[in-house]
Amino acid sequence: MPHRVSYSVYYEDTDAMGVVYYANYFKFFERGRTEYVGRQGRSIASWNDAGVYVVVHAASATFRKSAALGDRIDVVSTFEMVSRFRGRFVQRIERGGELLVDGIVDVVCIDGASNLTEFPADLQSSLLG
Amino acid sequence: MPHRVSYSVYYEDTDAMGVVYYANYFKFFERGRTEYVGRQGRSIASWNDAGVYVVVHAASATFRKSAALGDRIDVVSTFEMVSRFRGRFVQRIERGGELLVDGIVDVVCIDGASNLTEFPADLQSSLLG
Amino acid sequence: MPHRVSYSVYYEDTDAMGVVYYANYFKFFERGRTEYVGRQGRSIASWNDAGVYVVVHAASATFRKSAALGDRIDVVSTFEMVSRFRGRFVQRIERGGELLVDGIVDVVCIDGASNLTEFPADLQSSLLG
Amino acid sequence: MPHRVSYSVYYEDTDAMGVVYYANYFKFFERGRTEYVGRQGRSIASWNDAGVYVVVHAASATFRKSAALGDRIDVVSTFEMVSRFRGRFVQRIERGGELLVDGIVDVVCIDGASNLTEFPADLQSSLLG
Repeated sequence: MPHRVSYSVYYEDTDAMGVVYYANYFKFFERGRTEYVGRQGRSIASWNDAGVYVVVHAASATFRKSAALGDRIDVVSTFEMVSRFRGRFVQRIERGGELLVDGIVDVVCIDGASNLTEFPADLQSSLLG
Repeated sequence: MPHRVSYSVYYEDTDAMGVVYYANYFKFFERGRTEYVGRQGRSIASWNDAGVYVVVHAASATFRKSAALGDRIDVVSTFEMVSRFRGRFVQRIERGGELLVDGIVDVVCIDGASNLTEFPADLQSSLLG
Repeated sequence: MPHRVSYSVYYEDTDAMGVVYYANYFKFFERGRTEYVGRQGRSIASWNDAGVYVVVHAASATFRKSAALGDRIDVVSTFEMVSRFRGRFVQRIERGGELLVDGIVDVVCIDGASNLTEFPADLQSSLLG
Repeated sequence: MPHRVSYSVYYEDTDAMGVVYYANYFKFFERGRTEYVGRQGRSIASWNDAGVYVVVHAASATFRKSAALGDRIDVVSTFEMVSRFRGRFVQRIERGGELLVDGIVDVVCIDGASNLTEFPADLQSSLLG
């Protein structure tokens, strides 16, 4: 079951083209990932406090339709591990079931000294659970 | 009864100081105003479609305490007319009842040609109702 | 010869991880594209005024190293047409010649009614010239 | 002589009203302050590294005219100390000499433990010099 969370589109999200600015969809993606990580109770901030940081290694998106001021949009996310070092969020943004944007965001873990690490077992099981 | 709406603080809201970037509190204020305007059913987007635009003339805020990643914050808003041409939102951001930021945002109405207008009676009664 | 334009990293660009927030690199990419389009004298705003809008269809980036507060970074851009309907910016962000982020941004043209159009000949020759 | 630095307005700065989003003028103010602090050679990042953080205590602005996509705007800043603990930037945004936005931003110093401190003498003389 994909994880799903809803947001309203505000002026801050839009640009002079009248619709959501392309880079801001990546902000919505990130909100979705943050809620995904925290969905079982342990938040990203709590992982950070433990010296575990999940950072984006690569991101891509295809912009199919636009969201506009006042729209209610859903960020829909699934997660899988693609190696011991890399996790993958497959994400999309929908409005009333209609696909607006879909993308892939690969994340890696670093420690407090910014060194790449394997995903800790408890984080991995939380993300896959 | 002040209007109240809650938001989570995400990475996008923070800066390298580790807490919410000062200008982003004005984004939260604006989200609160948008929800305030729409609280009786007619959204800002709908007013815009009718050629009524509510724009900020002046804004101020005092930053008393910081919000951080993962915090849940409330935007609390009241509204009054200070003249036929100017409305005033008195707004604050709280976290668990604790005041973080308070401010005042004065707004005016413009029409589709960017001319200053009085607040339309129906908008005014909606905002004051 | 790739097009090159420099920007400073400010607090607004960073997040609580202490470095530039991933989605904001797409803002730098867009600044680079805007300057690329306008490099021969006709600005994006001028194209918009003529009813020609260049919008992002797909974007991807790989985040190799981080930029931090106070860094001076270069946005380096090249452009090619991949069909009559689609142009491609290959872009990267460097700091002192070191690659930080590279990506690909595919753009399409729409008219004032948001209909997909071929790239106008004069825009195309300007972009390729 | 007020300090002056210029920026271009990009899509990211605008919103669906077609002009710069009100909160983003505070980003331009902050860019101007950052350049002001660094104008004699020592950057804000360098002060931060030394455990000196300059944070905004209060900010206000009056939005008189709008900047639009492609505009070239100047951020004009002066600084004064209003107490040993508080500095004040008086700032405005101009376009070709025309006033668009003016405001006041009061800043305080905190140390690495987020405790309020007096302005260090060397920072103060740098800001006033």
